[in-house]
Amino acid sequence: MPIATADAPRLDGIRCLIMGGGGFLGVHLANALARQGAVVRAFGRAPADPLELDGRVHWNSGRFEDPEATTEAVRGQEIVFHLLSSSVPGSPGQIPAFDLETNVLGTLRFLDICNAAAVRRIVFASSGGTVYGPADTYPISETAPTHPISAYGVGKLAIEKYLGLYHHLYGLEYIALRIANAYGPLQSILKRQGVVAAMLDHALAGKPLKIWGTGEVVRDFVHIDDVVSAFLWAATYGGPHRVMNVGSGTGLSINQVANDIEAITGTAKLSRNYHAGRTADVPINILDISLITRETPWRPRRTWLDGLHTTAQWMAAKRRAPLSDHARGRSPA
Amino acid sequence: MPIATADAPRLDGIRCLIMGGGGFLGVHLANALARQGAVVRAFGRAPADPLELDGRVHWNSGRFEDPEATTEAVRGQEIVFHLLSSSVPGSPGQIPAFDLETNVLGTLRFLDICNAAAVRRIVFASSGGTVYGPADTYPISETAPTHPISAYGVGKLAIEKYLGLYHHLYGLEYIALRIANAYGPLQSILKRQGVVAAMLDHALAGKPLKIWGTGEVVRDFVHIDDVVSAFLWAATYGGPHRVMNVGSGTGLSINQVANDIEAITGTAKLSRNYHAGRTADVPINILDISLITRETPWRPRRTWLDGLHTTAQWMAAKRRAPLSDHARGRSPA
Repeated sequence: MPIATADAPRLDGIRCLIMGGGGFLGVHLANALARQGAVVRAFGRAPADPLELDGRVHWNSGRFEDPEATTEAVRGQEIVFHLLSSSVPGSPGQIPAFDLETNVLGTLRFLDICNAAAVRRIVFASSGGTVYGPADTYPISETAPTHPISAYGVGKLAIEKYLGLYHHLYGLEYIALRIANAYGPLQSILKRQGVVAAMLDHALAGKPLKIWGTGEVVRDFVHIDDVVSAFLWAATYGGPHRVMNVGSGTGLSINQVANDIEAITGTAKLSRNYHAGRTADVPINILDISLITRETPWRPRRTWLDGLHTTAQWMAAKRRAPLSDHARGRSPA
Repeated sequence: MPIATADAPRLDGIRCLIMGGGGFLGVHLANALARQGAVVRAFGRAPADPLELDGRVHWNSGRFEDPEATTEAVRGQEIVFHLLSSSVPGSPGQIPAFDLETNVLGTLRFLDICNAAAVRRIVFASSGGTVYGPADTYPISETAPTHPISAYGVGKLAIEKYLGLYHHLYGLEYIALRIANAYGPLQSILKRQGVVAAMLDHALAGKPLKIWGTGEVVRDFVHIDDVVSAFLWAATYGGPHRVMNVGSGTGLSINQVANDIEAITGTAKLSRNYHAGRTADVPINILDISLITRETPWRPRRTWLDGLHTTAQWMAAKRRAPLSDHARGRSPA
């Protein structure tokens, strides 16, 4: 489901590096950048499923913790998209010190490398779902207080602050996009990446849906195509804002998602298993997206039911090709 | 200049640990806690000058990076005052990754130790002078945006966020005090701790005053006795706020400080050397202290000219006892 060229800026000949190019967002972004004319290098632990990755994307295997590999990857790049994370928002038994060391300290060392290589701009995948924590009012704007209740969220917020510091100290340009709950094709069910993928998988298998808490938790679901489009606009944005929300701007309860999945997959009346709520889950998360819609031509263009429908179609097709699924399960986040 | 008992709560028999007990704030706080009846242990790299430390304070030599030493220090403690930092706000050539590793990651590992030892409360010395960065309006309240422009400030802010996370995840109680520019007796001129100490030292030696930038930078100077008193109130505070500013609530330009120092030390017409402004210096910093004055009986009680006068007296006496000065110069921050 490629993004229409009219919905995104051209990036002809611009050398773009994606850190985390084999993940859910990484593969979509790499392909979109290639379509918009950029010269794309994708960096990750292992090659992404070659079936998914555009043939014009140069794959670069390496570990984020290896300064030689990242220095080599960054060389000559103009725009770096930093999507890598060693953890996901809902990691059970998350250890804050581990998250800090791998994600925050790892990113700082990487920023030093980008700085030395005179990278023009960093576009950072921050987390609109976790940096704010429990909010007083909804939708949540970029100026709302930030009280994250997960190590993942504190780490993302700390990286934003260090990006601000590097901009101040060294002039490094950056944009941090605070992304809501992304969903869509290629989202892995093996890496706890998203409730939509997990529930779709269960529904298509005829298994009970697994729901944390009462199911009344509200989230802002944004289609991966819209997220990718926001990254393309961020790559060329020249205004003064450095932190922008990216979401649908609307909220859906998990129970509503379950209902819609049942309706779309024709699996109504699946049983639902309710599990104890997770400590890192805020009750409501809906992002105010007025800033990015004011500052760029970006709009969320994929409607929820249409997006869910195409995601279900993709997943149903994937279930009939388990080898490809397996290969993707081993690809890096 | 002990704090009057009426200005601070009694802490009879409460076991208090000060991490960084040999520094400027640490020694003052240790002595005040002892006077208020607490059982005080002070932890640091080397014993503080025994002439300055109250005889009732138990000194505990150790390195913050040594988990065995900190585990031993924390054992049986009820309240932990965390004042340690490997850097100071104006550190030249500050390396963000080093600051993150030593201060933030070091603190996270320390919080795990406090958690395991069932410490009741952490009182953290945060930095009102650096966590906000350049502000839009003054005085700066706790809800203002935080855009630090020094590694020191980002690190302090990140620690605040991790404290919030540990409170959420593990119920660890904490208060973070965002301190303005503290000054007063015992402040070291060797560790770049404060402009007041540095300028007083030069004035008393008849040397030109060294001023960064134009001297029109404005700071909120708060006497160390008032800072200590805020820590005592924070130790017993039972309200909902976890982050509070501690300052005088008023601003003074560096040139005004220089004028006042010349007047008080009788060294008028000293020449002034103006140096290039430092990149980590915000133009203005004045803290809004209405929250802490609403939530606790704390007030700033030392007036600027009186506080400056007694600090000058202390420093003049110290200059006549260089051995003691030398010993203090080697004590840990």
